[in-house]
Amino acid sequence: MITGKNYVGSTLKAAGNKTFKTFNPQLNVENPWVFTEATHEEIEEAVALAHQAFGTYKKSSGLERAGFLNAIADEIVALGNDLLVQYCSESGFPMGRAEGERGRMVGQLRAFAQMLIEGSWVQAAIDTAVIDRVPAPKEDLRKILVPLGPVVVFGSSNFPFAFSTAGGDTASALAAGCPVIVKSHSMHIGTGEMVASAIIKAAQKTNMPEGVFSNLIGGGTTLGTALVKHPLVKAVGFTGSIRAGRALFDLAAQRPEPIPVFAEMGSVNPVVLLPKAVEVNSQKWATAYAGSITLGAGQFCTNPGLLFGIKGAQLNKFSEELTQAIEKIEPFCMLHPSMKDGFEEGSATLIAQNGVVKIAEYKGEAAPNYGVQKVLTVDGKTFLENKTLSHEVFGPVSVLVQCDDEQQLLKIVNQLDGQLTGTIIGEPEELKNQEELITAMQNRVGRLIFNGVPTGVEVCPSMIHGGPYPASSDSRFTAVGIHAVYRWVRPFSYQNWPNELLPAELQNENPLQILRTLNNIQTKSQI
Amino acid sequence: MITGKNYVGSTLKAAGNKTFKTFNPQLNVENPWVFTEATHEEIEEAVALAHQAFGTYKKSSGLERAGFLNAIADEIVALGNDLLVQYCSESGFPMGRAEGERGRMVGQLRAFAQMLIEGSWVQAAIDTAVIDRVPAPKEDLRKILVPLGPVVVFGSSNFPFAFSTAGGDTASALAAGCPVIVKSHSMHIGTGEMVASAIIKAAQKTNMPEGVFSNLIGGGTTLGTALVKHPLVKAVGFTGSIRAGRALFDLAAQRPEPIPVFAEMGSVNPVVLLPKAVEVNSQKWATAYAGSITLGAGQFCTNPGLLFGIKGAQLNKFSEELTQAIEKIEPFCMLHPSMKDGFEEGSATLIAQNGVVKIAEYKGEAAPNYGVQKVLTVDGKTFLENKTLSHEVFGPVSVLVQCDDEQQLLKIVNQLDGQLTGTIIGEPEELKNQEELITAMQNRVGRLIFNGVPTGVEVCPSMIHGGPYPASSDSRFTAVGIHAVYRWVRPFSYQNWPNELLPAELQNENPLQILRTLNNIQTKSQI
Repeated sequence: MITGKNYVGSTLKAAGNKTFKTFNPQLNVENPWVFTEATHEEIEEAVALAHQAFGTYKKSSGLERAGFLNAIADEIVALGNDLLVQYCSESGFPMGRAEGERGRMVGQLRAFAQMLIEGSWVQAAIDTAVIDRVPAPKEDLRKILVPLGPVVVFGSSNFPFAFSTAGGDTASALAAGCPVIVKSHSMHIGTGEMVASAIIKAAQKTNMPEGVFSNLIGGGTTLGTALVKHPLVKAVGFTGSIRAGRALFDLAAQRPEPIPVFAEMGSVNPVVLLPKAVEVNSQKWATAYAGSITLGAGQFCTNPGLLFGIKGAQLNKFSEELTQAIEKIEPFCMLHPSMKDGFEEGSATLIAQNGVVKIAEYKGEAAPNYGVQKVLTVDGKTFLENKTLSHEVFGPVSVLVQCDDEQQLLKIVNQLDGQLTGTIIGEPEELKNQEELITAMQNRVGRLIFNGVPTGVEVCPSMIHGGPYPASSDSRFTAVGIHAVYRWVRPFSYQNWPNELLPAELQNENPLQILRTLNNIQTKSQI
Repeated sequence: MITGKNYVGSTLKAAGNKTFKTFNPQLNVENPWVFTEATHEEIEEAVALAHQAFGTYKKSSGLERAGFLNAIADEIVALGNDLLVQYCSESGFPMGRAEGERGRMVGQLRAFAQMLIEGSWVQAAIDTAVIDRVPAPKEDLRKILVPLGPVVVFGSSNFPFAFSTAGGDTASALAAGCPVIVKSHSMHIGTGEMVASAIIKAAQKTNMPEGVFSNLIGGGTTLGTALVKHPLVKAVGFTGSIRAGRALFDLAAQRPEPIPVFAEMGSVNPVVLLPKAVEVNSQKWATAYAGSITLGAGQFCTNPGLLFGIKGAQLNKFSEELTQAIEKIEPFCMLHPSMKDGFEEGSATLIAQNGVVKIAEYKGEAAPNYGVQKVLTVDGKTFLENKTLSHEVFGPVSVLVQCDDEQQLLKIVNQLDGQLTGTIIGEPEELKNQEELITAMQNRVGRLIFNGVPTGVEVCPSMIHGGPYPASSDSRFTAVGIHAVYRWVRPFSYQNWPNELLPAELQNENPLQILRTLNNIQTKSQI
């Protein structure tokens, strides 16, 4: 079933001679399939096809694109159990997670389809002419969002379904009207090929133009660099590390024509434990956080890497309860030996810092590639003085920072880098006296949570997955939820344009019955 | 009345020893006022004040900010004729233009105030909790747009009112909740100081925090570089040349924390004259374009620098009529001798290119600093082979490109850089067979005009002033119209946050009665 080839448009190609394999971290063996890296010619062809496809795809109606996205979802589901097995063999995740994440991927595709069917997302605005205005007549002006052009998507390692080949970036870019070229994530290329085959089938069934989607394989940075620098590529979506994301951002910014890069990168997702909440509900929060820290072996961008509390008996109790909970949880397989190595190295670096003490670790035997969770602790003063302690370590490790007082805590929060999320655990009445802390958190995060855990990212219009740098490269957009479509579009004005040549969304009759801004009023009215 | 000093917050400071003067291009003499460049300490202080002001200013209500913007408008109007005289003495523009542009500046401020009073611009979205959802409960999530932080504004030379000190960038950033630091444009620093004094007065009258606005003076690139690189600055607005805009973009992209730069840069605003329209209405369009090319001495970002037609008797007739109209129009004073020099050099470079012929020029005597308008012509083949011919020359010069046929015309349009505007002059029935041409234009411009001139930029929600690079550095935003506010904000989510601590826009009761997205439905309903 797995060919190991690139989809250059709808054609499987593998003219190259560089190959590699993926790895099964559960079995601790290489997988059998051989994948061939895209050649220079294959890359050029995929981009040329995407550019050509853009000419017709940008003109497709919302209904047509919705049909395409729903067909992708259908074709993915039609791959059945085979796809889930492939996913597990390249990620180490169990079947339950595979099924859940497939549901999320399919749900996202259908949510974008629904958005396209409803149609108002294009933010149509119309200002009608005022011929007799003095001193000059007012011209008829109509605005709509239009797609940017071919988008390159770099999928994430930790969501082989929901944020990879047919994940949020691909779904939102296709919804926007942009052809997509995926650089298949090298940890799950077989999974990527299967999902890509579903996209290709769906494109053919719904008469989408050849080249609307390609799926390319590359080992190092050659493929990614070539794609981001290509003059016909108009935007980039990325999920991964700060180092890689920043490198792509820099490449794109240095082009003769710079292009937007939306990179969702690192985050340690700080959690502040206010004293009263710890006093009242220490056991509840200890259990919840042990679960959040270890969920999916800590391989979530919203994993809580830093917990802040105020020194004292209550925090000591919480610390003990967290330790007990952490020690009991069975470790979880990590995505790849390199992930496990990175985790071990990162943890060791943290532990080696002055003043850092390991307070909790799973005590039993762990299989190879399993991430053995740890909790470390350090005092606030030491934390303030050592930037290394606030760096993300991808995996199940968190640092409990014991602050002297609220002032020190505030100082620490004010020094944090940009984050995807921030959480405050408190009793409702405690929150009312924490205006400064809340403001400090707000300035640094994209999503602020009260009494919850940051893991768990709902797909809905009110979700922001993104935040001040380095959480993402452009905090003005979200990577999750239907508003992720706004990364790939630009506003466009028609002035004095004949009604019959306008897109349906802007015609006088409002044939799609969408909500529009008509002379500054939101309405579905005709003109 | 003019002190020549910097507004560091509300305090006039001039500790520096570098000074310069502005120039009156009408009288061809230096103006009397002496302006002192901001020192390193003054720059640091202005940014520190802006950072501090952000803490309280971001929390101000829409009504409070609307009061501030309206007060700025009032204080500007209260400066009366003195301000208009100052404007004329530093720009060479006549009183009528001064009055008109003041109206535009004041109108923009009031339009943003109106947007804030209405309140729905924050795009509030609410997804309510579903406690009993399986397998996991759905948390309450609420989203709103929040300001980025201190914004640096580089005003334009050619709109000393509407796109400078209190112009569109400043008005939109203040509306968003961002403090503003203006780098005063060195051609009209006296005008800038007067407008800045109105902003400072308005800030004090409406109890805005100290540092919400500063106005700094700088000669070369030192001040601009220091501001864009400053870690506490969070975004940049710029209007000017590609060279300067790109330099700021690069500086911002190379920061440890990259920040967004919205630079509105160059454009030659291509105009396509379809054969039938030229045949039917040659005199009408010749007159209209002679006016558009020479308006304000061609010193508009939407000035039509390139006209494309198909060779033949009709185009010859148009060319003659355009020539006659151009020769008759009285030249206009340019902003500064350096502008006039740039225009002359740029025109000379165009004329020196192989195959370029000057067909029209004003024949009378022109005062110093007046831009003597010219029309050049070249054939399509020559144009295709020489990139220099598509470079912007700021001033009253246009090139009429005579194409062999529609195919060559299409090829040319497909090779153009990104533009603010594109125009098609045609009879309605001609347009129907021009799908390829229309698509090619759409891919390259932010605003597409039918049977009109590109000069004249209406301030309304449907206006896009921006376009693919290099028209602007980020085509996803507009510099004109109330949607310009979206450059300075990011979406922010509250999860499970207590109702009484939410911003009013997100509270259950919808106290501001704004339109919100509530569980995917647009409504003003309470929860």
